[in-house]
Amino acid sequence: MNFRFLGTGNAGGVPLYGCECPACSRARLNKEHERHACSALIETECVRILLDAGLPNLGERFPAGTLDAVLLTHHHMDHVQGLFRVRWGRGNRLRVIGPEDLAGCDDLFKHPGILDFDTKAQPFQGFDLGDLRIMPLPLTHSRPTLGYCFEQNGQRIAYLTDTCGLPAETEAWLIEHPPNLLMLDCSYPPRSETPRNHNDLHMARRICDTLKPQHCYLTHIDHSFDTWLIGEPEALPDNMNIAHDGQALSI
Amino acid sequence: MNFRFLGTGNAGGVPLYGCECPACSRARLNKEHERHACSALIETECVRILLDAGLPNLGERFPAGTLDAVLLTHHHMDHVQGLFRVRWGRGNRLRVIGPEDLAGCDDLFKHPGILDFDTKAQPFQGFDLGDLRIMPLPLTHSRPTLGYCFEQNGQRIAYLTDTCGLPAETEAWLIEHPPNLLMLDCSYPPRSETPRNHNDLHMARRICDTLKPQHCYLTHIDHSFDTWLIGEPEALPDNMNIAHDGQALSI
Repeated sequence: MNFRFLGTGNAGGVPLYGCECPACSRARLNKEHERHACSALIETECVRILLDAGLPNLGERFPAGTLDAVLLTHHHMDHVQGLFRVRWGRGNRLRVIGPEDLAGCDDLFKHPGILDFDTKAQPFQGFDLGDLRIMPLPLTHSRPTLGYCFEQNGQRIAYLTDTCGLPAETEAWLIEHPPNLLMLDCSYPPRSETPRNHNDLHMARRICDTLKPQHCYLTHIDHSFDTWLIGEPEALPDNMNIAHDGQALSI
Repeated sequence: MNFRFLGTGNAGGVPLYGCECPACSRARLNKEHERHACSALIETECVRILLDAGLPNLGERFPAGTLDAVLLTHHHMDHVQGLFRVRWGRGNRLRVIGPEDLAGCDDLFKHPGILDFDTKAQPFQGFDLGDLRIMPLPLTHSRPTLGYCFEQNGQRIAYLTDTCGLPAETEAWLIEHPPNLLMLDCSYPPRSETPRNHNDLHMARRICDTLKPQHCYLTHIDHSFDTWLIGEPEALPDNMNIAHDGQALSI
């Protein structure tokens, strides 16, 4: 499995509009530190799947015929925005598989164009795309949200964002099926109060300590977390990394 | 007044995802023929206004403090999409003035962040921004939609998109206050049946013949219109031009 982080930012991204914090200033000087809409690509020799569709230039990055499906974690704007232009395209329909959510996002379900929303992912009902086994795992967020665990040849990558902690049944499933790589929402630096909708570093560490992946990559990063890390460069344990836009991994 | 077309495409843009027509193929070979979300910038020495906000990278193009206001024609996704990331910014609020439309777009009104939607533009109730006099003009579209006529030192630029024909009272106002430059929705080549929601070239010519601007620039172009024009390069009268992304004009 080849995995690539396309975007690792939260809804405001890095740099954040109007913000002069160290992380936002650094990203304006060096594009390598920019963070765009949280999304990823997972590929095998047989299949190529886009994980969330919040990047704006999807049609340019992935011309028609180069994606087998789009998997959505949920229907917040920063995870679906790129579909609004693509939907008016020509040719074969593009499968977009996500959780049941009647509201969807704006008029996306009303005017799907070439997007095929017929298949919904159901919690704990595994399915195959090409040679990948995919298990949808409920997450804890302000909208119906699913993480996904991808499995091939006994290797597993779990992609768990957006979430604040993990539902007990998702944690139990992942303890039974431990991922080699864990891609995890960690929007915020350690907070004194439990955050809403997204993990802070306390919560991400707790999840990581429970699931014990070989490597954990933190994503959906808020600018405040980047700034905190500039002051605490040694804060993360050895098996925990901050993901970056464009970062590629293989197992 | 300095006017710049930032985007001149309709919701699908050019090239359209998956489309191999002559216009879409040409745009893939040469970015100068691309058309992005219909929007523009109008500036004087005193004021800088963004006209519609459908481009995705607004924060990069217009860093905080470089725009005095955003004027929205309406709340369809391809005219507001760029606001979804900007809203989470820091610092001064950014005024976004548009027509009354309770639905807005997705959760933009529910979570405005730094966007200031307090001022609504009302049909035929002129207002000033800096040294520009601005008159909101009702248009005919599937959502509440306003065009705007900008006036400075007796010179006028009318920006009329999205629209299918013109309401009688808008036409009457523009006959009394003729624009020097008319920027006009013309999404489609001539059609045998009257189109819905957008002008075809028949309708755009009729409006242009009635209002008699010195120059008319067609915008909100569908790929099918570009392809038609490749085959009919002499089809437009002398005072009518096809706008291009990035095209700048001054009066």
